[in-house]
Amino acid sequence: MKIVVIGGVAAGMSAAARARRLDELAEIVVLERSNHVSFANCGLPYHIGGVIKERDDLLLQTPQSLRMSMNLDVRVGHEVRGIDRQRHTIHVVELGSGREYDESYDKLVLAPGAMPIRPALPGIDHPRVLVLRNIEDMDAIKALVDGGARSAVVIGGGYIGVEMAESLRERGLAVDLVEMADQIIPPLDREMARDLEGHMADHGVKLRLGLAAASFRDVDGRIAVELTDATTLSANFAVLAAGVRPDAALARSAGLELGSRGGIKVDAHMRTSDPDIYAAGDAVEVVDTVMGIPSLIPLAGPANRQGRIAGENICGRDTVYGSTQGTSIVKVFDMTGGGTGASEKALRKAGRSYLKVYLHPSGHAGYYPGSAQMHIKVLFEPGTGKLLGAQVVGFDGVDKRIDVFATAIRAGMTIHDLEGLELAYAPPYASAKDPVNMAGFIGSNLLKGDLALWYAEDFPAQTSKGLILDVRGPQEYEQWHIPGAVNIPLGKLRLQMDRIPRDKPVFVYCKVGFRSYLAYRLLKQRGLADVKTLAGGSLTFCSVLGKDASHKGRDK
Amino acid sequence: MKIVVIGGVAAGMSAAARARRLDELAEIVVLERSNHVSFANCGLPYHIGGVIKERDDLLLQTPQSLRMSMNLDVRVGHEVRGIDRQRHTIHVVELGSGREYDESYDKLVLAPGAMPIRPALPGIDHPRVLVLRNIEDMDAIKALVDGGARSAVVIGGGYIGVEMAESLRERGLAVDLVEMADQIIPPLDREMARDLEGHMADHGVKLRLGLAAASFRDVDGRIAVELTDATTLSANFAVLAAGVRPDAALARSAGLELGSRGGIKVDAHMRTSDPDIYAAGDAVEVVDTVMGIPSLIPLAGPANRQGRIAGENICGRDTVYGSTQGTSIVKVFDMTGGGTGASEKALRKAGRSYLKVYLHPSGHAGYYPGSAQMHIKVLFEPGTGKLLGAQVVGFDGVDKRIDVFATAIRAGMTIHDLEGLELAYAPPYASAKDPVNMAGFIGSNLLKGDLALWYAEDFPAQTSKGLILDVRGPQEYEQWHIPGAVNIPLGKLRLQMDRIPRDKPVFVYCKVGFRSYLAYRLLKQRGLADVKTLAGGSLTFCSVLGKDASHKGRDK
Repeated sequence: MKIVVIGGVAAGMSAAARARRLDELAEIVVLERSNHVSFANCGLPYHIGGVIKERDDLLLQTPQSLRMSMNLDVRVGHEVRGIDRQRHTIHVVELGSGREYDESYDKLVLAPGAMPIRPALPGIDHPRVLVLRNIEDMDAIKALVDGGARSAVVIGGGYIGVEMAESLRERGLAVDLVEMADQIIPPLDREMARDLEGHMADHGVKLRLGLAAASFRDVDGRIAVELTDATTLSANFAVLAAGVRPDAALARSAGLELGSRGGIKVDAHMRTSDPDIYAAGDAVEVVDTVMGIPSLIPLAGPANRQGRIAGENICGRDTVYGSTQGTSIVKVFDMTGGGTGASEKALRKAGRSYLKVYLHPSGHAGYYPGSAQMHIKVLFEPGTGKLLGAQVVGFDGVDKRIDVFATAIRAGMTIHDLEGLELAYAPPYASAKDPVNMAGFIGSNLLKGDLALWYAEDFPAQTSKGLILDVRGPQEYEQWHIPGAVNIPLGKLRLQMDRIPRDKPVFVYCKVGFRSYLAYRLLKQRGLADVKTLAGGSLTFCSVLGKDASHKGRDK
Repeated sequence: MKIVVIGGVAAGMSAAARARRLDELAEIVVLERSNHVSFANCGLPYHIGGVIKERDDLLLQTPQSLRMSMNLDVRVGHEVRGIDRQRHTIHVVELGSGREYDESYDKLVLAPGAMPIRPALPGIDHPRVLVLRNIEDMDAIKALVDGGARSAVVIGGGYIGVEMAESLRERGLAVDLVEMADQIIPPLDREMARDLEGHMADHGVKLRLGLAAASFRDVDGRIAVELTDATTLSANFAVLAAGVRPDAALARSAGLELGSRGGIKVDAHMRTSDPDIYAAGDAVEVVDTVMGIPSLIPLAGPANRQGRIAGENICGRDTVYGSTQGTSIVKVFDMTGGGTGASEKALRKAGRSYLKVYLHPSGHAGYYPGSAQMHIKVLFEPGTGKLLGAQVVGFDGVDKRIDVFATAIRAGMTIHDLEGLELAYAPPYASAKDPVNMAGFIGSNLLKGDLALWYAEDFPAQTSKGLILDVRGPQEYEQWHIPGAVNIPLGKLRLQMDRIPRDKPVFVYCKVGFRSYLAYRLLKQRGLADVKTLAGGSLTFCSVLGKDASHKGRDK
């Protein structure tokens, strides 16, 4: 059997390696357009930023090492220009020499990945408008920085844009980050991105949210980036990180079926509409675990897994790729943010019903040094409590909680199940009631009716019909409070019940939601019919509405 | 309703707090023998060690704060001496004043915790033989250290013993750690504890494994600890951390049923044999998740959860405590070790059949700074692949992997399911193929017959019947190799197949098991019938057999 793999990074190399392990005698050819295979593409920003010192550390394999260990015929700098499905051949160009040849295959794997989106803007082809997709791109950007560039504009506030902005700041450049949405890291819900944005600003990144690039111009060797609000940013170079789209050109020209989102369509065996052609990685459409619909979710983990599965099925196995839940994470200077499963905006867009809880626990026991408050949002189904998604932002232990949520979602667990998870506890690592357990407690209380929540979004339209009750201490109240709120500290609540009207709704809140939960329980059981507690407390309130927006009401 | 809770730390306080939230009008009394409630008992060693600077940080609540926030009647320094189940009263002694009184209850919760084991050894009651169970104990030890103690003997190498040894070393004391077993951290399998032991030794802790204290003597104000091998250690003081046993005296004297392990027997609702008495925490017997048998598993997380469940059921809910899987973790200087589910020794003792895999991946992408090799062992059922247990030891990301395994075990996942877990990947946090995925790959390969393993335990009895084949590079081979091994590096294996005999078993190995897996695949498919690859490679081999033991064979 002769297997030809197009693309030699995550998905492609996984397919080739797995195929070799299952079929020692197959002929396996890997064709890679760039000059490197199996390179650490997620590490590229960090070499530019100087965190990864040695460029060679990113080059995990060479054609020679892959020949030695796995008897693979790896050809870099070879671009595939066409597929003749009838003849079972592909047309290849050796980019260095210009030599062209046809290569036959019994089974073909398409793993071309995704391409950076390059909107058709004036000046977009200026040589100082760069992208970061491979080693060559990295070398080009790093050369500019090493050569004395002092400023850059990063277009796009997704994972790559944020990592680029951080890395360039680490090198001392002045950095503007332009993002069309009103938040960075679009897979997160907006309120969850707030702290990351503040942290970036604290580290000197100038955020330009709600704006896009409109044109690029050369001004004396610098690049002038005009934004959609007509302001112009001038910098030594710009990096385009405005998202990616599947590189499906080859598949399209070969007449393979594409999906509704423009990616290569594959079945659960990673097989395209041609039974002898498989596809894997960022170029294919996958089923979204939670939403159940075809989606483009370009992530390294799923790409590797899909490649492996393609390799297995080519070698006669019957391995199924389930779905992609979009687990992702990003380091933002000292902070970490990420999520798994569906976001609230995705659920809302799809018209799915959901419940949500927020909490702000410590990454580990608060009395043990090095801990900080984290922010967690969990989405789950009304009724069943089935987990739909989770987002976590903070400093220590964020990646751990994302992975626990990811595992729970993959297992089909409910919010109730989180209560009983038995996670590793010692003070340097966690709390006896882990943040994930706490999310379970809150969500489970909500589902069982032991807790009723109001949300920042209810302010002021809903809250104006009742009393906003602040149960924090008087000093906290004085520093800041929700406009119109009355302050009765939790400890005095039982004695001052008579200050609370019984004929209208009471909207309780505190800082994070725990004291207000205690207040809720006591008020409810002492006869108040309509009480709710603010989800996530004033912390979430301010993240949702912003510091200014939260003052749109006025103290009476 | 009047609820009385005996014990005011983890389980007891959880029960009281949950009961209050569900029943605002109940009278709730909490009786605590020591002078503190809700203190951070897992933090005690770290205050002695100076990592937690402020003693007050460990005192999370006071009777006053609990009265204010939750209207609890908390009495510290009150010891319960007896239960009159007929009359529904308990007999209480106020330790300070000596005043005695009876207190009535409708529902009683026993949460007395566990007591340090004090073996009946000569001199054990010497005032310089201390234990660490509560704030008072901590104060006593800390006073000795602050007062100039220069040396200590810690008896017991479990979690508390190890944390004490570390904390005392951090304060500059000379520390001997005495442990009866041939390893520290007995819940881990022996080979998994090796690196932690080496790390402790590197930090100056003198390990005395396989030894116990035989007697204690005063020598001019110092304590002389005679060990079972007749050596004597002299130090300023000794800390007894030789395990704990459930404090079931009160339950026993009240005629409540005890379990086979000596803990208080409870049903799934945390109810004792008396329907008006519940029990929770370290004093009760729980069902072991994996082994399915009654067990004593004194851990803070489960204690809190059990207390909460007792509180719920007292208030008319129907909440069930499932089981305890024993997820635990310990910081050992810069290292971390822990596990979840059953250990191999527990499975072997119970006669359960199991398979095991070892791996040694990086905590995160090797090219991103700050990563180190971790050691993972996963145990699972033959046939089904159902996960039975996992142990992880290393530097970065250990707690995360334990929690993912813990969640997977709780979900009833199989080793196959680990392959498809979609975990958060960016270079600072993980690898695209996470260590947990890798464990899944290896275990799944084993179950499917794509891989056959040999184990360090097979050396030399089994291996002497065949060829030991080292597929590492020649330099690695020269530095150290398994006695008798022949070296053919992986890259040359296809060319030197004729050096391998086809009529006897081939025992392949490399450093961690990956190259030998590739070698296995190619040898097997090129016609060798009897090939196996060493589980965990030479790293695990040396951990199992020890550096010396591994030389018991001789090079031919």
